[in-house]
Amino acid sequence: VPFTQQVENLSHDSLIRRAASVVTDSSSTFLSQTTLALIDSLADYAKAVHTRIALQRQYLATLGKLSPAEDDSLWKLINNQRAEVTDRLSQCKHYETTWTFAMDISKMAVEAAYVSGAEQASITIRTNIQLAQSQIDEAKKGSAEADRKLAETKADEIQRMAEYHAFLQNNDHEMHEAYLRED
Amino acid sequence: VPFTQQVENLSHDSLIRRAASVVTDSSSTFLSQTTLALIDSLADYAKAVHTRIALQRQYLATLGKLSPAEDDSLWKLINNQRAEVTDRLSQCKHYETTWTFAMDISKMAVEAAYVSGAEQASITIRTNIQLAQSQIDEAKKGSAEADRKLAETKADEIQRMAEYHAFLQNNDHEMHEAYLRED
Repeated sequence: VPFTQQVENLSHDSLIRRAASVVTDSSSTFLSQTTLALIDSLADYAKAVHTRIALQRQYLATLGKLSPAEDDSLWKLINNQRAEVTDRLSQCKHYETTWTFAMDISKMAVEAAYVSGAEQASITIRTNIQLAQSQIDEAKKGSAEADRKLAETKADEIQRMAEYHAFLQNNDHEMHEAYLRED
Repeated sequence: VPFTQQVENLSHDSLIRRAASVVTDSSSTFLSQTTLALIDSLADYAKAVHTRIALQRQYLATLGKLSPAEDDSLWKLINNQRAEVTDRLSQCKHYETTWTFAMDISKMAVEAAYVSGAEQASITIRTNIQLAQSQIDEAKKGSAEADRKLAETKADEIQRMAEYHAFLQNNDHEMHEAYLRED
């Protein structure tokens, strides 16, 4: 290492530039970890919603065909799955909070690296920010799709329940008429 | 290492907590480097101002006693020192910018570490932020004191120059009277 380079390496500007690069590196790692956690939690949430939808549909398909005991155990499963969805959603919110912090720190690291003369580090972390944003956008499509299907299922449920109650009333009416005819 | 601990170490929460700790470490280093640079640049600025004050006082002390060549070279020194003060001030502003970024990133790292469950790292960097702030406050007292003395010297200069001009006019008057007496 030439002497002039050694001297340069000890200057404030050089030390600041290096320290800023290390900040961008660690912010990138923090961003990656929080991005992966948020992607996984969004996927877990979507999976939990899909399971809930499947149980809900099973309930509608078997409406009036189950014994009270079978009906009860299916309702227990649905309620457990409803709690699971709530848990998964709160986990998503937790990781979304840390991910947002990681994004904010990373965006600030872009600027800090730039003013410190660490242009390459600044460009690298800016690229990582864009990547993280597009990965999260993609993962959120999955959970939004699950939410949409759950809303559809709920609308279906309301209609089917209305039909079922109409059917029950109709049966009562027919039974009542049969009774009158027997009279 | 027990098996359960290994598993724990691979969880999202654990990886995020570690990554957040590394962010606080690197932000602390960045803060230290920018703090040292700003302290040095403030000291260099104060030194340059004191040198300018000394030259200014030398000029006032020798007013009317120097040859035009000596007067000229002293003025050159004063002008060079004035330029030096301007350079040092712009260096202070440069390091103040990077230091402010380092403070902002560090403050955000305090929060990020906290929400990530890295409480100890959060406390450590908060302490480093307070230390950096008090070191800079102290260093700024030195440069503010230099500024105050420079302002005093300028006020002195205005007074002395006024006295000197009055003295010159007086001398002219006396010379004029002497001329009249010779008449």
